[in-house]
Amino acid sequence: MSVNDKWMLPEGIDELLPARAAGLETLRRDCLDYLASWGYQLVEPPLLEYLDSLLSGMGQSLDLQTFKLIDQQSGRMLGLRADMTLQAARIDAHRLQRDVPVRLCYCGPVLHTLAEKFAGSRNPFQLGAELYGSADLSADAEIIRVMLGVLQRASLGQVWLELGHVGVFRAVVEAAGLAAATALDVFADLQRKDPSALEAAISDGQVSAELGARLLSLLELNGDASVLARARAQLGDLPDVADALNDLERLVAMIRAFDGGCQIHIDLAEITGYHYYTGPVFSAYIEGQGDAIAKGGRYDNVGAAFGHSRPATGFSTDLKHLTGIVMPPSKAAVRIYAPALDAIDDELAQRLSALRAEGAVVIHRLEGSSAQARAMDCSQEIVRRNDSWSIINVIE
Amino acid sequence: MSVNDKWMLPEGIDELLPARAAGLETLRRDCLDYLASWGYQLVEPPLLEYLDSLLSGMGQSLDLQTFKLIDQQSGRMLGLRADMTLQAARIDAHRLQRDVPVRLCYCGPVLHTLAEKFAGSRNPFQLGAELYGSADLSADAEIIRVMLGVLQRASLGQVWLELGHVGVFRAVVEAAGLAAATALDVFADLQRKDPSALEAAISDGQVSAELGARLLSLLELNGDASVLARARAQLGDLPDVADALNDLERLVAMIRAFDGGCQIHIDLAEITGYHYYTGPVFSAYIEGQGDAIAKGGRYDNVGAAFGHSRPATGFSTDLKHLTGIVMPPSKAAVRIYAPALDAIDDELAQRLSALRAEGAVVIHRLEGSSAQARAMDCSQEIVRRNDSWSIINVIE
Repeated sequence: MSVNDKWMLPEGIDELLPARAAGLETLRRDCLDYLASWGYQLVEPPLLEYLDSLLSGMGQSLDLQTFKLIDQQSGRMLGLRADMTLQAARIDAHRLQRDVPVRLCYCGPVLHTLAEKFAGSRNPFQLGAELYGSADLSADAEIIRVMLGVLQRASLGQVWLELGHVGVFRAVVEAAGLAAATALDVFADLQRKDPSALEAAISDGQVSAELGARLLSLLELNGDASVLARARAQLGDLPDVADALNDLERLVAMIRAFDGGCQIHIDLAEITGYHYYTGPVFSAYIEGQGDAIAKGGRYDNVGAAFGHSRPATGFSTDLKHLTGIVMPPSKAAVRIYAPALDAIDDELAQRLSALRAEGAVVIHRLEGSSAQARAMDCSQEIVRRNDSWSIINVIE
Repeated sequence: MSVNDKWMLPEGIDELLPARAAGLETLRRDCLDYLASWGYQLVEPPLLEYLDSLLSGMGQSLDLQTFKLIDQQSGRMLGLRADMTLQAARIDAHRLQRDVPVRLCYCGPVLHTLAEKFAGSRNPFQLGAELYGSADLSADAEIIRVMLGVLQRASLGQVWLELGHVGVFRAVVEAAGLAAATALDVFADLQRKDPSALEAAISDGQVSAELGARLLSLLELNGDASVLARARAQLGDLPDVADALNDLERLVAMIRAFDGGCQIHIDLAEITGYHYYTGPVFSAYIEGQGDAIAKGGRYDNVGAAFGHSRPATGFSTDLKHLTGIVMPPSKAAVRIYAPALDAIDDELAQRLSALRAEGAVVIHRLEGSSAQARAMDCSQEIVRRNDSWSIINVIE
């Protein structure tokens, strides 16, 4: 590696220079304060853990996303966190061990071995909130409410909420006695608009014609809340489907209760995270962004891996991505150029402290530097005039 | 790994539960705001980089501390940051490329393969500030000033400042024409109170008796500012030593100018980071902690590896360690228990928003949960009484 490319970062790994880092910091504080006001307490899980802990019950996709390394101290395999959700669940289940509902949030960098999409980030800055200990839909509604609140803080304009329920797909497949893995393969092909896998599965008897028709119908069941009625007509004979649809109906009503104007899109074919989610799933979209900007869902009993099974629901988002869409406004602090540190008397020292406390940025001249106030981006300068210190405007 | 130990974290890796995470967040904001008021702009370097970039010119000890992994995307070796100093230097040298002084700060988790001491942390939360583009001591003085300011925010009480200068040891060794590696070995043995290596080096002619005497004298040159005069008497015949001592004398005067009561300890045998530092080095200590709680120094020209050589000085500390010594006071927000989200009318919704905006934490009851306000750590509850919403105190 020559001098000329030592500065290069790996593909998909980026860093934030002052303007964007300040934007991220502003949004981070704003979101954490907001979540705190709803009772979500910040936790700080570690960047790495034993791989078994980090992946417990999370399925293959997280495994593939997780960087592995060997712990020199124990010789055991470690993983770098690719997602903080399970870490928070471990903290709830093992460290806190409370019986009442617990609300946690977290915010920090995570790493992915491979970007999820072309030119995607491999080092998102994940912010999330999780609610443990309630199996009720009011918990999912609250998580959706705070997810929308967080996105509102990012000034992204109109947000669309997409709602699904993994119980619908699960019930359809289970009613047909089909292995989930087979069903997922067939369904993934269907979602890619490739019916040949389904046709093959029907012709070799793996999938009944009835199940085939139901899987196909799921693909059509997306749109506004009227989808629920259509789904009930087509699939409501399966009791578990009917239950899931009732859940979604109640959830939509709850969301309408706190946000009458919320744009809700139902998608019963949404099965991302099927291995992991156990109930309602939700994503947030904005115009111009093909991928969800935040997502979450119900994932009951993940805590069982840590000895304390708990219902749970939560969401997460990538704050760095959000600041890339709309840059949060930064505080417009006045920047004042001041004499070198060793040329400052007590009177000026007190005045500078006061200016800093009021929010000003005071930049000291450095001996031997010829930089003038303008070059240091200062609009004001503090100078000694007529035996006193005066703040003067810097002439353009 | 059984259910019973999936919650275990690797040795030396810890995480923060709500109370301490809140303390860290408070201190983090306070320190970053303070640094911003001195003109230090936050940057957000990535958790990992190509290993060559991460270690450029940093010597073997950082190499040993750095976790390595293979980038699946490029096949190249990556390193997890064990220190953010060089990342910031890369940003100054390559990304910003300014000719005027630049002040940067950073704050985030880093990882070490091995703890620096028994039961030490392998995942510190590093906060640091760096000043690029000034070779003058006023820059070192400013960095020391803000280091002390940051520590003041952590409410640690009396801080002792230890000052050294790698130029003293370097000049002594260079004047004797000795290879630095040999000298370092001999000196390390001397610091461990083992004179046998020096005796052996003198008897086989590697080290002259004169150099031997000087190396031994360095070990005695520590104490208050009077050490400088003693050093001048013993070693001042070497011009580079005299220069370094003059530097330290001026630095002490500058520090006294802004902090007359500062406890300063001079140690001319302090050569930690000898490969890396080029001038004054400094550490901060408090009573009851054997190791430095913050440290830094001048490291000119590290930016050369990134194509833009710049004088530089900076410091860093571990905020997590600091919050472990003295827990920052947390905001004592009132916690109010509120009805379930779907039982809230517009009037109450507005009232809850206002309460949250004023700093209260509002916790919603969840349907199906029997938890009462007390169990949710709420001292107040909002209830419907006589056709209006009232806040009542929760009875103990």
